[in-house]
Amino acid sequence: MGFSSQSSCLAISGGVGGAKLALGLAHILEPGTLTIAGNTGDDFVHLGFFISPDLDTVMYTLADLNNKELGWGQAGESWNFLDAVTRLGGDSWFRLGDRDIGTHVIRTQMLVAGKSLSEVTSHLCRQVGIKHRLVPMTDDPVATIVHTRTGEKLAFQHYFVRDECRPEVTGFAFSGIDAAKPAPGFSEALADTSLAAVVVCPSNPFVSVDPVFRLPGVMDAVASSKAAVIAVSPIVGGQALKGPAAKMMAELGMPQTALAVAEHYARQYSGQVHGFVLDEQDRRFRDEVELLGLSTIVTNTVMVTLQDRINLAEAVLDFSSEITP
Amino acid sequence: MGFSSQSSCLAISGGVGGAKLALGLAHILEPGTLTIAGNTGDDFVHLGFFISPDLDTVMYTLADLNNKELGWGQAGESWNFLDAVTRLGGDSWFRLGDRDIGTHVIRTQMLVAGKSLSEVTSHLCRQVGIKHRLVPMTDDPVATIVHTRTGEKLAFQHYFVRDECRPEVTGFAFSGIDAAKPAPGFSEALADTSLAAVVVCPSNPFVSVDPVFRLPGVMDAVASSKAAVIAVSPIVGGQALKGPAAKMMAELGMPQTALAVAEHYARQYSGQVHGFVLDEQDRRFRDEVELLGLSTIVTNTVMVTLQDRINLAEAVLDFSSEITP
Repeated sequence: MGFSSQSSCLAISGGVGGAKLALGLAHILEPGTLTIAGNTGDDFVHLGFFISPDLDTVMYTLADLNNKELGWGQAGESWNFLDAVTRLGGDSWFRLGDRDIGTHVIRTQMLVAGKSLSEVTSHLCRQVGIKHRLVPMTDDPVATIVHTRTGEKLAFQHYFVRDECRPEVTGFAFSGIDAAKPAPGFSEALADTSLAAVVVCPSNPFVSVDPVFRLPGVMDAVASSKAAVIAVSPIVGGQALKGPAAKMMAELGMPQTALAVAEHYARQYSGQVHGFVLDEQDRRFRDEVELLGLSTIVTNTVMVTLQDRINLAEAVLDFSSEITP
Repeated sequence: MGFSSQSSCLAISGGVGGAKLALGLAHILEPGTLTIAGNTGDDFVHLGFFISPDLDTVMYTLADLNNKELGWGQAGESWNFLDAVTRLGGDSWFRLGDRDIGTHVIRTQMLVAGKSLSEVTSHLCRQVGIKHRLVPMTDDPVATIVHTRTGEKLAFQHYFVRDECRPEVTGFAFSGIDAAKPAPGFSEALADTSLAAVVVCPSNPFVSVDPVFRLPGVMDAVASSKAAVIAVSPIVGGQALKGPAAKMMAELGMPQTALAVAEHYARQYSGQVHGFVLDEQDRRFRDEVELLGLSTIVTNTVMVTLQDRINLAEAVLDFSSEITP
């Protein structure tokens, strides 16, 4: 199925890197034809707030509220809450900005009142003027657990923020995933007969994409669709553009290459990921990726400007049209 | 009993006005000899936060963290949380500052974890360097309810902040007070054999002082002590220096005078309030206040400078030495 104005697209996103491509897709697709499913394995409760870091990053990015200097959080952010909490002896390792807390307070209030995370996300997105559909991967609790060399098992944010990714990882678990169902909007997008492309944004394969794909029923629904499934490498020139993906790969005994990411997807989701997008810097891997059974394009995947985001989104959708799953 | 370096003092305080005199007392009394019991009838839960406005006002004032320009809240406050919550469609009528939220988050966390409000207050005060003892009037839930002309009964903060004191009041109720016990530190201060002065700070008689005095056991403990009980008029020259006390008096059919405040205390706590402090502007009421059975002094009670606060505190303690209950 080729990608046309009648086609719809489902993007799978983690945080910052994924949000960049999601923004590009949102710029070229009508609101009704793009659903973004965000990883919720990073979600946690901190200082009494329910926090969904990846959903918030995508939301702030789509609403143009994101902090371009920091690369995370909101623009025009202040830190007086954190200053006060520190003085009062509270936990300050997770840097909650004053504006950001507004999001967490509203989310927490709505969840406590019995709303689902999907309903909360929809409400928040509507309030900040987002037209496209952002959904959590699930409304059920799933917690990414990082297994480390010392045997310690860390909640994701403890690994990622508190311990600044220092612990050596040996693997990951997704607590609660077997009992979790894809969120309604995610299932609807997967069941949509016009679904022509599933775009795996350049997010961490292990802790951003795997939890989404491993939700019960997701890969079956992907297989039942006629959609081309295309992954964009988050590793460019041997480095993660953002986050600990490359460090994790080294610790897991994998080469820190885009090829290794392709191998991961090919092995984990055998035959169900059809296309792979390499950066120009990684052109040399093209043949090897294709030998894995993945169609491949080479383009610029380093998204510095908005136009970069739009160009990559267009390249990915064009690519999806060429693939017959 | 005269007030000496061996004597101890208990101050009863509401918010801003009371905190000024509490600060004056804290400047002249050793930490071990002053307990401040704060009204908690104004406490409420908002956006998921447990908020104790009067305790916070006293705490910020004693720690010199209070906002002198606004007259409430913290110095150097910012409002980005409120801005964000408003954008997200949340309640914004209660102006929660970014720094202030730190206090509410720590309090909420500790209460949810099973700590008492006394323990929370003690922790917060210690963290901001307060040496004197600030205690809530009770660890039990007591909610001041404002009865209004239309028949509507308003939670205090709805009356005070949301509706800006516009509704005409007909009376007050203190929900939960019959089952409430004075907080341990409050009871200890009342039972302290060295207690020589109970200072009723210039706070709203109806919604700041009455809930404290009406707690079961409080007036009995006051009567059993040898302390002189001295109230400072919050009405000066026919006006409340802060808050709706004068407006309430008019609506309740009382003259808006310091004399009417003295009459309220004399009638409500017959024989148990011994002394009354009038401002120079209200000197003409002196004889009438004394006819109510209250010893009286006339001094400057309008606290603009820190020295004003210290002077009034000294005058009140000197006054207490002259009274034999």
